[in-house]
Amino acid sequence: MKETKTNALVIQAGGPTAVINQTLAGVVLEIRKYPQVSKIYGARHGIAGVVKHDFMDLTDYPADKLELIAKTPGSALGSTRDKADDEYCKKIFAVLKTHNIKYLFFIGGNDSASNCGIINAAAEAEDYELRVIHAPKTIDNDLLETDHCPGFGSAAKFVASAFAGVNLDNASLPGVYIGVVMGRHAGFLTASSILAKKYPDDGPHLIYLPEKPFNIIRFVEDVKNVFEKHGRCIAAVSEGVADEDGVPIAIKLSKQIERDAHGNVQLSGSGMLGDLLADEIKAKAGIKRVRADTLGYLQRSFLGCVSETDAKEAREVGVQAVRFAMSGDVDGSVVIKRAGDYKISYELVDLSRVAVGTKAMPDEFINGANGVTQAFINYLKPLVGELPSVEKLEAKQVQSL
Amino acid sequence: MKETKTNALVIQAGGPTAVINQTLAGVVLEIRKYPQVSKIYGARHGIAGVVKHDFMDLTDYPADKLELIAKTPGSALGSTRDKADDEYCKKIFAVLKTHNIKYLFFIGGNDSASNCGIINAAAEAEDYELRVIHAPKTIDNDLLETDHCPGFGSAAKFVASAFAGVNLDNASLPGVYIGVVMGRHAGFLTASSILAKKYPDDGPHLIYLPEKPFNIIRFVEDVKNVFEKHGRCIAAVSEGVADEDGVPIAIKLSKQIERDAHGNVQLSGSGMLGDLLADEIKAKAGIKRVRADTLGYLQRSFLGCVSETDAKEAREVGVQAVRFAMSGDVDGSVVIKRAGDYKISYELVDLSRVAVGTKAMPDEFINGANGVTQAFINYLKPLVGELPSVEKLEAKQVQSL
Repeated sequence: MKETKTNALVIQAGGPTAVINQTLAGVVLEIRKYPQVSKIYGARHGIAGVVKHDFMDLTDYPADKLELIAKTPGSALGSTRDKADDEYCKKIFAVLKTHNIKYLFFIGGNDSASNCGIINAAAEAEDYELRVIHAPKTIDNDLLETDHCPGFGSAAKFVASAFAGVNLDNASLPGVYIGVVMGRHAGFLTASSILAKKYPDDGPHLIYLPEKPFNIIRFVEDVKNVFEKHGRCIAAVSEGVADEDGVPIAIKLSKQIERDAHGNVQLSGSGMLGDLLADEIKAKAGIKRVRADTLGYLQRSFLGCVSETDAKEAREVGVQAVRFAMSGDVDGSVVIKRAGDYKISYELVDLSRVAVGTKAMPDEFINGANGVTQAFINYLKPLVGELPSVEKLEAKQVQSL
Repeated sequence: MKETKTNALVIQAGGPTAVINQTLAGVVLEIRKYPQVSKIYGARHGIAGVVKHDFMDLTDYPADKLELIAKTPGSALGSTRDKADDEYCKKIFAVLKTHNIKYLFFIGGNDSASNCGIINAAAEAEDYELRVIHAPKTIDNDLLETDHCPGFGSAAKFVASAFAGVNLDNASLPGVYIGVVMGRHAGFLTASSILAKKYPDDGPHLIYLPEKPFNIIRFVEDVKNVFEKHGRCIAAVSEGVADEDGVPIAIKLSKQIERDAHGNVQLSGSGMLGDLLADEIKAKAGIKRVRADTLGYLQRSFLGCVSETDAKEAREVGVQAVRFAMSGDVDGSVVIKRAGDYKISYELVDLSRVAVGTKAMPDEFINGANGVTQAFINYLKPLVGELPSVEKLEAKQVQSL
């Protein structure tokens, strides 16, 4: 005989964030309040763990330890890049039914929302009552329907802090600095490099987003112009910048293209794009001191760089996911709505509206080919919170004797 | 007629750190207590600014602003990589004499200590009473005579926080991660990657220092062995790793070698070494998910990643530099002495003892070809201070039904 109690399962998927475990803790601690739920399981490494029956029992996991885990970056349950096709979903259901899972909480990005939709459709086809709630997370901030995504604010804080420091370093020892930022199709994170800019000549001076075609000849001209004006230049470049035909600049240069299960090209974890752009500047702009950094995995995992607002909202998204699941026979994705400056509310929207695609930076956030607008800064500021203040030494010049 | 009052000059040189302006503030605020000093100047961009008479007047610069500058990363005065040969020194003296500079405070690394020595020797040759005090700074921690260098603790905190986060990210989505860390000849910073390691299977699992010959075949074997054991592997690799003949691995691969004025090869500001090592692992170890990050300039500039101990000591080094200068006709380098766990005192040693070379990791800090010892962790811990705690989710496994 099968298990007859009603159980819940929570999954983390895709790239981790600094606050994804806040959402996990929110789900687990909130669902404990509902006596109709007997067991709370966590799948190891997402749907890959589901099909292997690889579950941890979180039902009685100590709350104080969960609070420590909430503050720990990375996906505490483990993650996966697997995509669930119909075949995969059949396997998932066999397992869910066996364990009498009636509540599925899927913490992930748009690929996860898509997976949620497929799983949910399969459940409906078999007349199995499953409440599937997608809880958003992604440092890319590219989910549809939501004002912003948990995980983004902390990653943006990292990027802003990195460029603020690099600006000071570059002012000390002038030259050209190119910083390559994560974000395959959406430029939110690259654009965040501007947040700590204080003085008019501060970097980043140039910001290249995947939303705008990237022209390498124009890039060299832009850098030359800034360098002539300020004696130095800092450019923030999205890893996903692409040419007029939509071909990523990184792909043009890579001989070995590695693709993951979603058909995405691996743009992170290599310094290639930055190095090529630096080589172009050295060769074509005649500037000697040119440096490139690729910010890499630190953007989503660096210990101790967390936006308090982001952490709070990531937790609340988990709590809200449970409340929505318990409110009736509903499925959907939890989205954050913003009012004024700065009020937040949570809504549940249909999974298909989130799964259908990704969000790019809207036009009002983009300023020409290499900049962002004040509207974007206003949008970003409350998500990141206060950054340490910096001060420039501006003393009077000593007269030559 | 020349200026007759006694003036002081402060200089920042070499690569900036997160706390180098603490030392600047320490010098400027302390020297104001001495009425025999009339003017306090700061040279823009180090000795390059000196020979151009490019000074800022810090005599009455507001103390509250100096406190903000103290907390700002980068060299507030600007820096340079110029090296002072005899010719350069003659030019410097012409300027120092013109401005009646009797106290020179030179905040820098071992190249700066060398510059100090040359300037001081030239002063003595001309019977010019100049008190030259070298105040140490370097993220590499490679200065002789001192227990450790201001700037290192904060950079070490960055590296430790980066690898702690990357370890959690890599546990979420397993694979091989290679992190390339600054440090041309000294492995202190690369070794610091271990500091936040908590659980036995945490990364970094392998640490490659420039002090030990790097063999790429053994590297591939090491990574394979760790990957077989843990299903993942994190390696911290110094940018300066070199083969048995002392040829840096990065040089072997680079077609265009860029050298700065000191004859140092540019190892930072490029992702080349990490990418090559990742390619080796993909090709020779048959592991698919291999990522490399080069931590780059963030290590010495990231906004908000400061060790409190480091900040405090960097300030005190500036204060002590002034006190030594005022104690009589002395020259030298301020060094930090450590007693027990953890008491600090400051001494002045002869410039030549610091200028003569760099310090490598001592043998008792190195564990075989790819690790560090507990003695090193004990040495490092008080310099970095507390890091945010992390927690691993270790719940009981759910039985398959």
